Amino acid sequence: MCAQPAGWLPYDAHMNQAAFDAYLDANRERLLEDYKDFLRQPSVAATGQGIPEMAALVARRLASLGAEVKIVPTEGDAPPVVWAELGPADAERTLLIYNHYDVQPAEPFDLWESPPFEPTVRDGHIFARGAADDKGELVSRIHAVEAWQATQGALPIRIKWLIEGEEEVGSPHFHKWVAAHKDWFTNTRGGVIDGCLWEFGGFDEKERFRLSLGVKGICYVELRVKGVDHDLHSSLAPLAKNAAWRLTWALASIKDIHENILIEGYYDHVRQPTPAEEEIMREMPFEGDQEEWYKQNWKVDEFVGGVHGYEALKKLLFSPTATICGLTSGWQGAGTKTVLPALASAKVDFRLVPNLTPEITLDLLRRHLDKHGFTDIEIEWLGGYRAEICDPAAPMVMAATVAARRIHGHEPIIDLLSPGSGPMYTLSSFIGGVPVVCAGIAHADTRIHSPNENASLKNFFAGIRYAGALFEALAVQKK
Amino acid sequence: MCAQPAGWLPYDAHMNQAAFDAYLDANRERLLEDYKDFLRQPSVAATGQGIPEMAALVARRLASLGAEVKIVPTEGDAPPVVWAELGPADAERTLLIYNHYDVQPAEPFDLWESPPFEPTVRDGHIFARGAADDKGELVSRIHAVEAWQATQGALPIRIKWLIEGEEEVGSPHFHKWVAAHKDWFTNTRGGVIDGCLWEFGGFDEKERFRLSLGVKGICYVELRVKGVDHDLHSSLAPLAKNAAWRLTWALASIKDIHENILIEGYYDHVRQPTPAEEEIMREMPFEGDQEEWYKQNWKVDEFVGGVHGYEALKKLLFSPTATICGLTSGWQGAGTKTVLPALASAKVDFRLVPNLTPEITLDLLRRHLDKHGFTDIEIEWLGGYRAEICDPAAPMVMAATVAARRIHGHEPIIDLLSPGSGPMYTLSSFIGGVPVVCAGIAHADTRIHSPNENASLKNFFAGIRYAGALFEALAVQKK
Repeated sequence: MCAQPAGWLPYDAHMNQAAFDAYLDANRERLLEDYKDFLRQPSVAATGQGIPEMAALVARRLASLGAEVKIVPTEGDAPPVVWAELGPADAERTLLIYNHYDVQPAEPFDLWESPPFEPTVRDGHIFARGAADDKGELVSRIHAVEAWQATQGALPIRIKWLIEGEEEVGSPHFHKWVAAHKDWFTNTRGGVIDGCLWEFGGFDEKERFRLSLGVKGICYVELRVKGVDHDLHSSLAPLAKNAAWRLTWALASIKDIHENILIEGYYDHVRQPTPAEEEIMREMPFEGDQEEWYKQNWKVDEFVGGVHGYEALKKLLFSPTATICGLTSGWQGAGTKTVLPALASAKVDFRLVPNLTPEITLDLLRRHLDKHGFTDIEIEWLGGYRAEICDPAAPMVMAATVAARRIHGHEPIIDLLSPGSGPMYTLSSFIGGVPVVCAGIAHADTRIHSPNENASLKNFFAGIRYAGALFEALAVQKK
Repeated sequence: MCAQPAGWLPYDAHMNQAAFDAYLDANRERLLEDYKDFLRQPSVAATGQGIPEMAALVARRLASLGAEVKIVPTEGDAPPVVWAELGPADAERTLLIYNHYDVQPAEPFDLWESPPFEPTVRDGHIFARGAADDKGELVSRIHAVEAWQATQGALPIRIKWLIEGEEEVGSPHFHKWVAAHKDWFTNTRGGVIDGCLWEFGGFDEKERFRLSLGVKGICYVELRVKGVDHDLHSSLAPLAKNAAWRLTWALASIKDIHENILIEGYYDHVRQPTPAEEEIMREMPFEGDQEEWYKQNWKVDEFVGGVHGYEALKKLLFSPTATICGLTSGWQGAGTKTVLPALASAKVDFRLVPNLTPEITLDLLRRHLDKHGFTDIEIEWLGGYRAEICDPAAPMVMAATVAARRIHGHEPIIDLLSPGSGPMYTLSSFIGGVPVVCAGIAHADTRIHSPNENASLKNFFAGIRYAGALFEALAVQKK
C-alpha cells in the first residue's frame, strides 16, 4: 500500500454517496442505453470507419454535461482530438482525464458470439467492440460527472478531458498535438495539473483492483537489408550476398544467447528502481500467483534466464529489451524453393526503462550496426514512447488509493508500472510532471483487442462510483 | 577441351548426314506439329494437371518408334515413370536418356504474351510452357530416333529411356524407383551402361554450345523452433522465450559473417578438384565474361569475400554452402505489432560437393545444433541429392564433344559441373558409374520456369541433329 504522505489531511468524505448511488439505480436502464449508443457507433482508427461520427457523439455528450467542448484536428484527415473542460474555473484541483474514442478492428467477425457493434448483455456482461477499451471507461467517467451534478451540485474539481481517436494505431499525432496545445495543460492558476486519470486499468484474475503508475517505453523499428538486385537461384550462394544472412548476423550482434543486449552504451542509460519503487514492487503479487499463471499459460517450466519471484518481476519491469517481433525473407511457402533472397527484414521492439529514450536507442542502434560493419542495414523508425513512472508519493496516487478503498472495499494493489507502453510521458513529464494513475473497469477476461470483448456491468457501475469518489478525494485534499 | 583418351579410335562418321538433314527439311512442318502436340498437353506435377494424359502421349509416341514401352507407377497417385527401350538388343553401346514429361506451373498467366499451353511461333522461337524444359529436349531426341530410322536404318546403339513426371517437384520418388528397378539399368551384356544423356543443356549468351558433366549436391531443410505456447504481447520479453531469437542464434552459429561454415567436420568431407578437373575449370570462360554479367545483373561491385576470376569459379563449383532461402516469424505486415512470436522457421539449403552427402550434412547439422545448445531447433529434411561429376576422360564425354564439333561447328565448352543440383547421382554412380553429359537446346533467354518460356527453332532442329550425331559417335567408338 501507499503510505499517506506527510502534510496531507486524512481523507474525509463530504459527498452524499447514498444519493449518488440511488441516482445510478434509478437511471440504470437509461445509462446502459447511453453506454450502448457509444458501442453501436463503430470507430475503427485503422480503417477510419465511423471516426467523425464518433468524435461528434462524444462531443455532444460532453456538451450535454455543460462542458466547453472542441473538436480539434490533428493532421489532414486523421482522427481529431475531442477536448472538453468542465467544473469550476477556480477549483483548487484540476484533473486531466485521458480516454480514446477509437477501437481496434473487430475482425475476425465469425468468432464473435454477438455482432461487435450490436452491444448485447449476457450473464451480467456487455459484449461489444470497445465495451472496455475504451468506451467502457470513457462512458463510466461521463456518467460519474452526470451523477455528481445531479446529486451533489457543481463538480468539486476542474476537469480537462482529452479524448483522442488514434490510440489503437499508436497515437501517431498525439505528442505533436499536445506540444502544439501545451498551454491548455495547466491547472486553474496556470500551474501543473494535479493528476491524470489514464484510460485503462481494472481488476485482476482474483478480482483485486489494481492501480498502475507507469509504463515502459518502446522504440519499434524495422531493420531492412538488400543484397543483390533480385532473388537469385541459390546455387549462386558462393558468390552472391544473401540478405537473409546479413540480417541474421546483424540481429545476432544485437543480443547474445544469454539475453545480453550488446549495443554499446545501452545499459548505461538504465536507471535502477529507487528504494520507494522497490518497496512497491515487493508488495506486488507475483510469485506463486501471476508467475504460475504465466508459466501455465505459456507452457514453459521456467522464465528466460531462470529468474523467479521478485527477481523476475523486477526484470519484467526494470530491464530494457530487444525483441524480434517478426522476420521476413525469401521463400515462406510449403516445401522447397532454392532461392537466394535479395531482401530481408525484421520488426524489432525495444522496451525501454526510465532515462533510456527512443531517441537514444535509435542513435545507439545505428552506431552499433555501423561499428560492426552493418552499414547496409537500414533502420526505419515505426514509433515509440518514453517510459514514465509517476511518483508513488504524489497526492494523486493517494486520492486514487483512498477512492479505491471506499468503492471497491479493499486496499488496491499498486502496480509501479506496466511492462506495456503508451504515450504517458506526453501527459506526464512533458507537461510539467503530472502524476498519472491508471484505474479502469477491465476484468481478467475482458478480451480487449479480441473477439467477444466485454465488460462486467458490475465493474461498469463500480467504475462510475469510483470516478465520483476520485473527484471528491482529490477535491478534499488540502495543499 | 577434352583430350581424346588413349586407346580410342579417332571419330569417323559413317552416317549419311545429308539424308538425315533432308528428312528434317522435308518433314519440318509435321515435326513441328508433333512438338506442339506435346506442348499443348499441360502436365503440371505441382497440381497433377494432365499428368496421366501426358504420360500416355509420351508412351504412344515412343511406341510409334518401335520401342518397348512401359508406364510404371512410382507410388500411389504420383506421376508414373515412362520407360522405353529401343535399338538392337545386341548393340555394342547402350545409351541411357533421361528426360521428364512434367512442367513447372505456368502462373502468373497474365505475364505470358501467348497462352502457355497454346504453342506459338514468333520470330523463330516457339513459346509455351515446356518449350525447352523439358519437352523441347524430349521431342528433339524422339525426332532424332525417327529421322535415324527413316534415313539410316536400325539404330546403331541400344537406348534405354527414362522419362519421369516429377522433376519439377524435386523428383521425390525417383531414387527409390531406380533402386527398385536397378536391374533394368544395364548394357546389353548386363554391364554398366556406356553413357547417360541428361535432360537439359544448351547454349550460352554468346551462343556457345556447352556440355556439362556434373552437378553439386543439395540438402534442403526447414529449421523450426517453438518457444512459448502461443504468440505473446512483446512486453513479456524479459521473461518469455522468443522463437525468433532462438532461430537467429541457431542460424548465426551455422555460418559466420566471413562466410565460414562453423559446423564441425563439415569441411572434412570436401574433396578438392583433381588436376584434370582443375584443367577443365581453367578452360571455362568466367573472368571478364560470366563474371561481369553476374555483377551487372546482380548490381554488385564484387562477389562475396572479394573473390575474382578463376578463384571465384572454383569457389562457385567446389565450395559447399549454407544458404538461408527463407525466414518466417511473427508479424510481417505493415507497421507495428508488438508480438513475441511463439514460432519461427527458416528454409536452408546446403549445396554439396563430392563426398559431402546429404546424409552426412544432416547428421553434422544435428550434432552441431545439439552441441551449441539448440536441441529445441527441429530439422525437417525437405529433400536432397548427392553431388556427381562425370569422369571427363569417359568415352561418353568424347562422343558428346565430337558430336558437338560436327553439328554446332565449334569446340563445345566443357562445364565440369553446374552449381545447381539434380538427381544425377542416381543415374550415374548409383547404377555403377555411368558417365553423364548434359547437352540440350536451351538458349540464354529460354526463360525456363518463367512466363514466356521459349526455344529457338534453330536450336530445336540442331538438337535433333545433335542427338543423331551422338548416337553415331557412341556407336563408332571401339572398345
